[in-house]
Amino acid sequence: MPDAVRAMVLEAFGAPLGERVFGLPEPGPGSLLVRVLAAGVCGSDLHIVSGRDPRVPLPLIPGHEIVGEVLAAAPGRIDVFGKPLAAGELVAFSRGVTCGRCVYCAVRQTPALCPQRKTYGINMSCADAPYLNGGYAEVVYVRPESEVFPLPSDLDPVGLVAATCSGATAAHAVELAGVKLGDVVVVIGPGPLGQYAAALARETGAREVVVIGTGRNPTSLRLAEAGGFVPVDLSQTEPADRLALVRGLSEGRGADVVLDCAGTTESLAEALALVGPGGVVALPGVAAPMASVGIDPYDLSRRQIRLQGVWVSEPRHLWQALQVASAMRYPLDAMVTHVLPLTAANEALRLLRDRQAVKVVLTPD
Amino acid sequence: MPDAVRAMVLEAFGAPLGERVFGLPEPGPGSLLVRVLAAGVCGSDLHIVSGRDPRVPLPLIPGHEIVGEVLAAAPGRIDVFGKPLAAGELVAFSRGVTCGRCVYCAVRQTPALCPQRKTYGINMSCADAPYLNGGYAEVVYVRPESEVFPLPSDLDPVGLVAATCSGATAAHAVELAGVKLGDVVVVIGPGPLGQYAAALARETGAREVVVIGTGRNPTSLRLAEAGGFVPVDLSQTEPADRLALVRGLSEGRGADVVLDCAGTTESLAEALALVGPGGVVALPGVAAPMASVGIDPYDLSRRQIRLQGVWVSEPRHLWQALQVASAMRYPLDAMVTHVLPLTAANEALRLLRDRQAVKVVLTPD
Amino acid sequence: MPDAVRAMVLEAFGAPLGERVFGLPEPGPGSLLVRVLAAGVCGSDLHIVSGRDPRVPLPLIPGHEIVGEVLAAAPGRIDVFGKPLAAGELVAFSRGVTCGRCVYCAVRQTPALCPQRKTYGINMSCADAPYLNGGYAEVVYVRPESEVFPLPSDLDPVGLVAATCSGATAAHAVELAGVKLGDVVVVIGPGPLGQYAAALARETGAREVVVIGTGRNPTSLRLAEAGGFVPVDLSQTEPADRLALVRGLSEGRGADVVLDCAGTTESLAEALALVGPGGVVALPGVAAPMASVGIDPYDLSRRQIRLQGVWVSEPRHLWQALQVASAMRYPLDAMVTHVLPLTAANEALRLLRDRQAVKVVLTPD
Amino acid sequence: MPDAVRAMVLEAFGAPLGERVFGLPEPGPGSLLVRVLAAGVCGSDLHIVSGRDPRVPLPLIPGHEIVGEVLAAAPGRIDVFGKPLAAGELVAFSRGVTCGRCVYCAVRQTPALCPQRKTYGINMSCADAPYLNGGYAEVVYVRPESEVFPLPSDLDPVGLVAATCSGATAAHAVELAGVKLGDVVVVIGPGPLGQYAAALARETGAREVVVIGTGRNPTSLRLAEAGGFVPVDLSQTEPADRLALVRGLSEGRGADVVLDCAGTTESLAEALALVGPGGVVALPGVAAPMASVGIDPYDLSRRQIRLQGVWVSEPRHLWQALQVASAMRYPLDAMVTHVLPLTAANEALRLLRDRQAVKVVLTPD
Repeated sequence: MPDAVRAMVLEAFGAPLGERVFGLPEPGPGSLLVRVLAAGVCGSDLHIVSGRDPRVPLPLIPGHEIVGEVLAAAPGRIDVFGKPLAAGELVAFSRGVTCGRCVYCAVRQTPALCPQRKTYGINMSCADAPYLNGGYAEVVYVRPESEVFPLPSDLDPVGLVAATCSGATAAHAVELAGVKLGDVVVVIGPGPLGQYAAALARETGAREVVVIGTGRNPTSLRLAEAGGFVPVDLSQTEPADRLALVRGLSEGRGADVVLDCAGTTESLAEALALVGPGGVVALPGVAAPMASVGIDPYDLSRRQIRLQGVWVSEPRHLWQALQVASAMRYPLDAMVTHVLPLTAANEALRLLRDRQAVKVVLTPD
Repeated sequence: MPDAVRAMVLEAFGAPLGERVFGLPEPGPGSLLVRVLAAGVCGSDLHIVSGRDPRVPLPLIPGHEIVGEVLAAAPGRIDVFGKPLAAGELVAFSRGVTCGRCVYCAVRQTPALCPQRKTYGINMSCADAPYLNGGYAEVVYVRPESEVFPLPSDLDPVGLVAATCSGATAAHAVELAGVKLGDVVVVIGPGPLGQYAAALARETGAREVVVIGTGRNPTSLRLAEAGGFVPVDLSQTEPADRLALVRGLSEGRGADVVLDCAGTTESLAEALALVGPGGVVALPGVAAPMASVGIDPYDLSRRQIRLQGVWVSEPRHLWQALQVASAMRYPLDAMVTHVLPLTAANEALRLLRDRQAVKVVLTPD
Repeated sequence: MPDAVRAMVLEAFGAPLGERVFGLPEPGPGSLLVRVLAAGVCGSDLHIVSGRDPRVPLPLIPGHEIVGEVLAAAPGRIDVFGKPLAAGELVAFSRGVTCGRCVYCAVRQTPALCPQRKTYGINMSCADAPYLNGGYAEVVYVRPESEVFPLPSDLDPVGLVAATCSGATAAHAVELAGVKLGDVVVVIGPGPLGQYAAALARETGAREVVVIGTGRNPTSLRLAEAGGFVPVDLSQTEPADRLALVRGLSEGRGADVVLDCAGTTESLAEALALVGPGGVVALPGVAAPMASVGIDPYDLSRRQIRLQGVWVSEPRHLWQALQVASAMRYPLDAMVTHVLPLTAANEALRLLRDRQAVKVVLTPD
Repeated sequence: MPDAVRAMVLEAFGAPLGERVFGLPEPGPGSLLVRVLAAGVCGSDLHIVSGRDPRVPLPLIPGHEIVGEVLAAAPGRIDVFGKPLAAGELVAFSRGVTCGRCVYCAVRQTPALCPQRKTYGINMSCADAPYLNGGYAEVVYVRPESEVFPLPSDLDPVGLVAATCSGATAAHAVELAGVKLGDVVVVIGPGPLGQYAAALARETGAREVVVIGTGRNPTSLRLAEAGGFVPVDLSQTEPADRLALVRGLSEGRGADVVLDCAGTTESLAEALALVGPGGVVALPGVAAPMASVGIDPYDLSRRQIRLQGVWVSEPRHLWQALQVASAMRYPLDAMVTHVLPLTAANEALRLLRDRQAVKVVLTPD
């Protein structure tokens, strides 16, 4: 049991993270100390460290994608299946901490919308007890409210960690979009969110999944192809080609569901062009404020299109993503192009910012 | 049994309808002759006669809202409940004629999207057999494919006729929006579509229904109030007042569902302002091409809003609307401000165009 | 603020409840003291005091149907809408206390099935701190996990209290049965559960609700009639009459949904006889072990019937029941045939056991 | 184009089928002549030829599982995607012919329950025009109402033909059971229905599928294993073993869904034992009248179980089954253990009756 815990801390927006050492706390009632084995560097971490996300308190240990092993557990602390958690167990947990008892949590059963929702590594400062509130650290303190999911010990934490944010959000999008057996699905944006969206749409019954990307990082589309999806390179095709492709796969109708995992003005326009009558366009990829987008209400009505916002995810989505990642039917682990030690977190952020990486994961030094 | 049938015919867009006389056909196999007892003048009829609806073939007998009595039925012609139809029976029928066997009708079960869908009084010319294809006539010829609903003989066709289009479309919107027990619902636009939307939302479980109107025709908001809804006059309130009202009724959240029955740029902006987190904005009111509208994808995502297009209606919606109208729990019949003889159809259209009427219905001379 | 709290306590199964006095505790973090203004005597209380419910620990303060006013609240204790609770406020709260974070609560979102679920007045002994764990008392101690719903101060607690158990369970049944706009619904058993089931089915869109009862207590069927439902007296009709009635209301099909609120061998057989093709029979009325019932799998298959178990209720159902009771569109408050002081709890149980009462409510002495 | 068509005809229940020759009709308006390339011998054909199915008119050409090629099509006859059908095209079509316009077809959208539903090879006698009404023939006459699905010309009709009945019914069961992403599913009965049920459950998101069989025909369980499912041999295991297995796969809960494809008293008891709290038992396997089965209403309620009847299938289920069979991700074609010429139909029925075959298919001589 270590008595000091290293963490990478954001002290000022735009400045590099600095290494700090914290004391190892005792887990309070219902709580858990988890040794971080893999901390994913999420695209939204770039917004967080740069100050574009207005909710972030300083100082902060970033990192909301975490797989780790139990270091210590309060007596009687159980996982979601009711089993007491023991030291050494491999676990993941909900990145969002919700109140569980408000109208959104308990009445509408949409905890993603809980007004008290807090997220490890995003809006829980390391100035506040129990301090170890983010994943860019050797240890994270997991609160009593956090749903904890056990994982088979033979799984690779690095390959799995993207399930805890991108995977779960993708599962939420697939659920809200209502993907059904036999659907033709288009995923725009082949990053971690899109890779999971494609896999989860396929698992939910999609017969064809088209994955559209810019081709700037060729690994992304190669992974999509290896997963059994139809890769489309934006830089090699015209809009009319893509429409023809999607219609060709769908007996002329257009996509039943488009999952816009890019979240740009252009991707939304593309999504509305590719969706067919009665279809759904879901927006899991919008993570920061953006410009207004013009839509055609008559087209939405005439073709009975649904445009569906998607916000973060809920515990069942994490479980679904972990299951699909664990089953290894898709090369989801192969999207990790870079594994760096925790103390190289600044370099990890740079790799992502410069689009050299598909996914970067931090591991203990 | 008459041997000549009078009808009001559109020969040229923008010109007045002219009276014409047709011979009375025999009902072919599976068909029905229905004496028109009430023909509603729908808002969309204004688009049709002016030529703004590009699908309209000439010459045309307008009129897609019809309640009538069976004049003659092919042997064995049954209603949706399997009962043979007999002369003298009061009936309504689906205004849309669908193929029943395509991917939209039979596989996706969304006949509203059937590519072969035709509508009495809209895109079935009176130049084509069996000619009597619209409601502005003494008799309408009902095809074998049309779902026929029997009505209690003591109901007033005039008070009921708006159920066949506005009512059914409102039911479709309520269904697609997923109104649930306990929801707070806002209806924008207090015309026939909005009056039915309010009633059907209430019937599906809405605990509060707010109806917003311009107040140009004071009858509309008075009817909403008489129906048990909360009337709001746009001309007497500011956006902030309306938001405060809706939030006050919903413990601060905003509306669970907004049914935009006005279908304008302004109403859609209002709808998006009034809807709460996790809510739905449905668009049953967009009946003709309109300008693009700017939406904020981040807001849609962050609050997990759903924007839902709604196109016409399906047989179950007609049945739902007829049931609710028949049960007389709302003053839906009172929205008929003007009843005119068939041959006064031009005057009826004028009353609607000048917004003097809430609903105009044509009856036999 | 009282410093002593009277309660009626079950010390031995089958013995009368005895009066005991408890000290008034301080509300711990997140907790609430609620002065009981109305405690409903539920049919299941008869099983509890007689020992037929195997889960009951002794000693016990019975009473799981409670409406009261806040006596004292821990600082920052909020209701489900996020508003801090203040002394004097009228409230109801979930009778079941669930963990909120297990696979049933957080992943499957069916907290009714939470293995850790405990219920005030049923399986929380008054031997265990904080002691005041049931409704047959002057004060109840409401735990941090309990979802608290504010009520308008002008409502009558006595008329409302059945919403907290019968009403909520009925809402659960209506939801699981999937009552839809236009359905024909049959409710078997016109007690409090059935009265709420009828009202909630109607609110969710049922066009006709038939309520079947034994007629032993004529008030029940009179209330059903006053609520706008079709009352049927088992003692005055034959099975064939009832089938003919239901078919007559449903164009020959049979009921779309049967809510069996009686939970006997006979009522289940009646339910399966009255339900139509594609229909649902839901079982909210089975509260204690009973004999096996024979069903015909071919009939279930051929007519595609769904038989749906229903267990207790979840927070949204409580909210729905409270809303419907508050709106006063049905004479739900009139089912309270007897109001007795707390210390007359034994007499209250007797009135219910002897079927002299439809609903008995205890109020402060 | 042949001018005579051979068919195998049932003239008397219990007697062997006899060969008969019919003239080749012209396809009437909207109709189609299809050359039968593969006719599946379904388990229910055993009931039909023996007279245990009371609906069967004589004489009858049995055979309701058909894949064939278009021989001649009425002008303008289109498939479900709106494409005109041409001679030589490979097709399947709905085995049930429904009215399309009744309350079940058009209002409730459950055409499986259409009172006018007729099925090729089951209740359409070859004494009635157009005579060629079953699959045990060289040519089948496909009516205007039948939904026709085009198939890629490179697919093997023999491997695909079970999709048209077993596959479609399995898809219906999976849909009615509501299989969701991450579910643990048990299939009882590893025949054609069960093989499809397992594949379709997996396609809809099941993470584990257990297939239980008697082991009488070892091919069945081998196929299940080859499909990626967990095979369980009833003859090698005790009920407690099976419960332990299912609980082990489901974190202790039991199955989320059990698809009882055997339809016996024993299989239903097994299903109710293996299903977990909140789960569903669906009954697609009950095809003929059987004895009453005792169920425990308290258990159903306490664990909130759903028992769901399933009757035949609807066009979307056929499409789903055809898609999954076409995608070749499961060894569904390998279940065909015997291919015989049409004129060996009696031998084919014997092989199935004696349980020597998993699936027998007839092909042109």
